Amino acid sequence: MRAEIVSVGDELLKGARVNTNAAFISNALAGIGVPVGRVVACSDRVDEMVSVFAESLQRADLVLVTGGLGPTRDDRTKKAAQQLLGRGTELNQEAYQNLAARIQKYGLEMSPSLRDQAMVIEGSRVIPNTRGSAAGMIISCGEQFHNHSLVLMPGVPSEMKAMMELTVIPCFAALSDTVIRHTPVKTLGIGESRLAEMIVDVEDCLPEGTTLAYLPHAAGVNLMISTIGHDRAAVDRDNRNVIEAIVLKADKYIYATSEVTLEETIGAMLFSRGLTVAVAESCTGGLVASRLTDVPGSSSYFLQGFVVYSNQAKHNTLGVPEETIAMFGAVSEEVARAMAVGCLEKSGADFAVATTGIAGPSGGSPEKPVGTLCLAIAKKNSAEVLSRRLVLQGDRQQNKLRFSEAALRELWQCLQLFYRKAGIS
Amino acid sequence: MRAEIVSVGDELLKGARVNTNAAFISNALAGIGVPVGRVVACSDRVDEMVSVFAESLQRADLVLVTGGLGPTRDDRTKKAAQQLLGRGTELNQEAYQNLAARIQKYGLEMSPSLRDQAMVIEGSRVIPNTRGSAAGMIISCGEQFHNHSLVLMPGVPSEMKAMMELTVIPCFAALSDTVIRHTPVKTLGIGESRLAEMIVDVEDCLPEGTTLAYLPHAAGVNLMISTIGHDRAAVDRDNRNVIEAIVLKADKYIYATSEVTLEETIGAMLFSRGLTVAVAESCTGGLVASRLTDVPGSSSYFLQGFVVYSNQAKHNTLGVPEETIAMFGAVSEEVARAMAVGCLEKSGADFAVATTGIAGPSGGSPEKPVGTLCLAIAKKNSAEVLSRRLVLQGDRQQNKLRFSEAALRELWQCLQLFYRKAGIS
Repeated sequence: MRAEIVSVGDELLKGARVNTNAAFISNALAGIGVPVGRVVACSDRVDEMVSVFAESLQRADLVLVTGGLGPTRDDRTKKAAQQLLGRGTELNQEAYQNLAARIQKYGLEMSPSLRDQAMVIEGSRVIPNTRGSAAGMIISCGEQFHNHSLVLMPGVPSEMKAMMELTVIPCFAALSDTVIRHTPVKTLGIGESRLAEMIVDVEDCLPEGTTLAYLPHAAGVNLMISTIGHDRAAVDRDNRNVIEAIVLKADKYIYATSEVTLEETIGAMLFSRGLTVAVAESCTGGLVASRLTDVPGSSSYFLQGFVVYSNQAKHNTLGVPEETIAMFGAVSEEVARAMAVGCLEKSGADFAVATTGIAGPSGGSPEKPVGTLCLAIAKKNSAEVLSRRLVLQGDRQQNKLRFSEAALRELWQCLQLFYRKAGIS
Repeated sequence: MRAEIVSVGDELLKGARVNTNAAFISNALAGIGVPVGRVVACSDRVDEMVSVFAESLQRADLVLVTGGLGPTRDDRTKKAAQQLLGRGTELNQEAYQNLAARIQKYGLEMSPSLRDQAMVIEGSRVIPNTRGSAAGMIISCGEQFHNHSLVLMPGVPSEMKAMMELTVIPCFAALSDTVIRHTPVKTLGIGESRLAEMIVDVEDCLPEGTTLAYLPHAAGVNLMISTIGHDRAAVDRDNRNVIEAIVLKADKYIYATSEVTLEETIGAMLFSRGLTVAVAESCTGGLVASRLTDVPGSSSYFLQGFVVYSNQAKHNTLGVPEETIAMFGAVSEEVARAMAVGCLEKSGADFAVATTGIAGPSGGSPEKPVGTLCLAIAKKNSAEVLSRRLVLQGDRQQNKLRFSEAALRELWQCLQLFYRKAGIS
């Protein structure tokens, strides 16, 4: 079985909205072994939708459409499906009752445009909407389209997601005879071409049905290893063998071979040893703290953060000596080290990470250009304070993100070293 | 002129990456009056790309492709273009020099796969890559494709964006004969259906060529007013008239009628009066500080932030009385108020914003469910401390985002009031 996704809505073509629905649907379909061939975003004009639906139904067994089922004037997806298939609509009782209950709950009155949301294409299977009022539907499109299936869902992400999970995925899981396994390999501190050289032998002999993709991002490169086949055990084995071969070649750059983030990896390392962390941030403005606290349960190892933007705050809150700032400048390894030490003392944490730099767009100089980051890590009961200076490239928000990534990477490497030493002693 | 966008890469079909490039390109094209007809994401298989490029080139004057120009094996976009057009490649000297300079900078050696990034399709115009090594190109596709243009760019967002801004947009701006104006109207604190009721008269008499779209998001609803035509003055006038009519109806919920963020709006209000702000965060974990410092120049009004995750940090760092925490709990308006007052004192800022709440997924109770937020704002030289308790709904990261949005909204409203009073006195 092969699927295509059609995302309806002018806002997608105007760049007013990013198409996150398609990514969610692709992911969900991969879980039941249904590969997605194409994703098409198109206008909500009826003639355009009729063409796009027809083309996709010729190519794919399953075409999933989101958007254009709501009560406002720009909702015309059902009209397009009617025209394409030459069918009428009928009132669905289950959908009508759901709609009536929602209308009552919000103190509204039934109107023709609201009632229309319970009308479905003749002969379709209804997808109940547990999060909203517009009914979804699964339509078998007849011989004209090789009995391929058309699935219509609302564009509101929460409504679409609930429909996918409760109805669409269970319905098509039973029909799929392929198995897909996607496994990420997440790396840090190495570029795309160097990584490619390092794993060239693995890439040269990938098993049949397995592909390897490079996904460069702000702070490194992730790999995606995908295996497709009919036998679950063989697919799992082939996929795992490739992952293991890559880990053998590039271990020191890999922080995860599953869908976990760097902050989750760090969190698990801290949590498993009962260690705590605190952060002192200037240029990252709270982003390092925010990323660490994105992880559920982070309150058990994240003690506190200091966002010390002004020199006065660096001095008053963390005790950074005014002479150090005057002598080396606020953006210097010396100030980063003093911030880390002050943060360690004030918080009582086991590790303290400090950042100071120039995110831009202004504030740079020939010696310290925009993109300069000084970071430091201090450890409890240790006189040694690590520090580093980097120059990265980007706009203000990219720099903040890359700075925060560099700080987390340094913390991760520091924890790795710490664990290795602990293992030896 | 009409455009289509083709986003190449298996990662888009596997849901491993959200297609943000297409949104950026659509937006940039709208600025020069070029509407986008379709966005297609497809596999990086050569045969598939050849079909997709051919179909798009039949429909659209301008087809912009991103992805598949890098040095690794899954980079096959040039091969597909060669096959489609029956042309070879040639080394471009300018691109080669850029590449050689980058390779030297990073201490690498030239290799055939790296050199390939300076090879362009015969007869194409090179798009210099100021952020990376792969050259882009603009290809006039000959009579077979009605002399339509094919633009190839890398998939790395920063490289693609620089190419769009420096070369592609200037090149096609001169050729476009339509004018498009998209203006956002950004609101806070009002739902979609109430807003629709409020502006029903405006929606009923939109001028010809103007459309109005609702874009609900985590914390409110934005509107997008789009006007298309051939006469710039008429397009601008029609668009502006609609905006003014909406502002008349819903002024108090609107914080911007341009592409500015809430944090930029707040920043401008603080900056214009020489006021300063500091934040004390528990549940938002640094996100409020990070958003405020996303704004260039924020160092002139953002003094510092305290991320006080543990009760001890709330007490030690901000002087929140231990009895207050014991009596009301860490998530309470009382603690939020004490945090705001402590933050004001420690930082010396004019305004202090404090958040404490339960982002989840654990930590909730019947009285204080996951999603509970208590926030407070203290003002310098004022005994009055504002505080509020809200219950929002979402997963941990959504809650953090909505909490931060609520805190910024409260600050915005507080600044509005402050300005109004200042205007009177």
